[in-house]
Amino acid sequence: MKLVTFDDGRVGRVQDGQTVEELDVPDMLAYFQRGGATPTGRTVPLADVALRAPIVPRKFFHTAGNYREHDEESKQVNWSHPVDPWIVFFQNVDAIVGPDEPVVYPEHLTEELDYELELAVVIGKPGSFFSPEQAVEHIAGYVIFNDITARDIQRREMKSGVFSFCKAIETFCPLGPWIVTADEIPDPHNLEMTLRVNGKERQRSNSSHMSVTIPEIVSHYSPMGYSAGDIVSTGTVSGVAGFSLDAASLYLRPGDVVEAEIEGIGVLRTPIVSWKDAHGVEAPPRVRW
Amino acid sequence: MKLVTFDDGRVGRVQDGQTVEELDVPDMLAYFQRGGATPTGRTVPLADVALRAPIVPRKFFHTAGNYREHDEESKQVNWSHPVDPWIVFFQNVDAIVGPDEPVVYPEHLTEELDYELELAVVIGKPGSFFSPEQAVEHIAGYVIFNDITARDIQRREMKSGVFSFCKAIETFCPLGPWIVTADEIPDPHNLEMTLRVNGKERQRSNSSHMSVTIPEIVSHYSPMGYSAGDIVSTGTVSGVAGFSLDAASLYLRPGDVVEAEIEGIGVLRTPIVSWKDAHGVEAPPRVRW
Repeated sequence: MKLVTFDDGRVGRVQDGQTVEELDVPDMLAYFQRGGATPTGRTVPLADVALRAPIVPRKFFHTAGNYREHDEESKQVNWSHPVDPWIVFFQNVDAIVGPDEPVVYPEHLTEELDYELELAVVIGKPGSFFSPEQAVEHIAGYVIFNDITARDIQRREMKSGVFSFCKAIETFCPLGPWIVTADEIPDPHNLEMTLRVNGKERQRSNSSHMSVTIPEIVSHYSPMGYSAGDIVSTGTVSGVAGFSLDAASLYLRPGDVVEAEIEGIGVLRTPIVSWKDAHGVEAPPRVRW
Repeated sequence: MKLVTFDDGRVGRVQDGQTVEELDVPDMLAYFQRGGATPTGRTVPLADVALRAPIVPRKFFHTAGNYREHDEESKQVNWSHPVDPWIVFFQNVDAIVGPDEPVVYPEHLTEELDYELELAVVIGKPGSFFSPEQAVEHIAGYVIFNDITARDIQRREMKSGVFSFCKAIETFCPLGPWIVTADEIPDPHNLEMTLRVNGKERQRSNSSHMSVTIPEIVSHYSPMGYSAGDIVSTGTVSGVAGFSLDAASLYLRPGDVVEAEIEGIGVLRTPIVSWKDAHGVEAPPRVRW
């Protein structure tokens, strides 16, 4: 089942890939809190709705280091720290945007805007302190996450041994295009993953390259406790701009369109727009950190 | 005005230091979203209510590095990274506990449980990308935060240049005892701050020691966007256990009681309880990271 948030925030499920059947629930968070919802009887053609971010969770666990290939590529640019397994921090839930919604380029804050394709897990059943075996029953679905990152800000932040700002600026969290329920993805550890910028491939990998399993990830972070609807991202694959020897030419620019695709889920499309196009005025003066 | 959450989650304000006047709002987040609330007419003696965590925000901005004395003391133990100004990450909103609510010691995960006294700001008016001058109108009140930290987990996490788990385990976020509105704290940059463990003083400082101002902090992080009711902590002062030459003897243990006090706000009291006392069973086997 594909679960969507659409138009003014209504929740529905896609039938036969063409029709959205509206569900009787105020938002997607409530859908997971209630453990489901019944149809209202209203249906709309999928082509006629505007898809929104499928969910805004209470908590967004941002994990990293689960693909060794991303650690390997970091060494090309002498990255300051190893991208070890079991990295976690919290994403800004107010920075979430949906499919086709723009990332606004804050030109006064960064000159190194990067993309990171990630498979993210949606938690259904709340809980804490559980094993990988138990984790399976907490996983309700999957969604695509494009982890937009200001790499120059990240480098500065990491001098103090912690970062978040670089990935948490307004609009930096594209999520979508919908949530695919776990029953439709029997093996989440064998999904092709591709990210394109203006149609050109930048990242290509497969979730089979993960060095740990998704239930291990979900279990490992469970001492922090999950609420229904929480999101857990699972790390990016190789091919980000900032870890390339040709980084300067690969960073995102206003006008770019990013397509993040994961097999069995779909494509999350994200246009990058300038501050001026978004706000109608020039960006503020450049901040020198 | 002192704003409290009490008993089964009701919201009220303390009158004359003795009476809680109930307010007609479902929770404290709604109080700030609506910009206030009217009394229900019901009053209860303050001594007869159980205070809860005053608010569970959408986002808890956890900042650090604003007291140079905390950076200085970190050098005593050759801490891996400087505690520079402008550190930020997000706290786990589901880890928040209120006054007199226990922190549960996860003995299988850490042997170095630490405290950190912090003044935290409550955001009233939402907004983003604003100046320090504008920040003043976004600040609605103040609250005490005890930033409970598993220092051994933090050291391990920081090898990858980011941490969160160490401060985000269930119950690690005592907040309270109430929110004091900004009008009652004309100068938040001149408040005595004291933390005691079992009555013995561990931290003593003054918010005047901050190297930046609170409006500068609130402005600096505004590109991430604030919702009404968001919390912004402002960093701890010197005297934490982990940065002492005698750390091993100072870490918290089950049975300890921590009192975090800030002038003009009050005292946030937090008992530390063992896993067994909290859960009725022994802690799981020790995790070796």
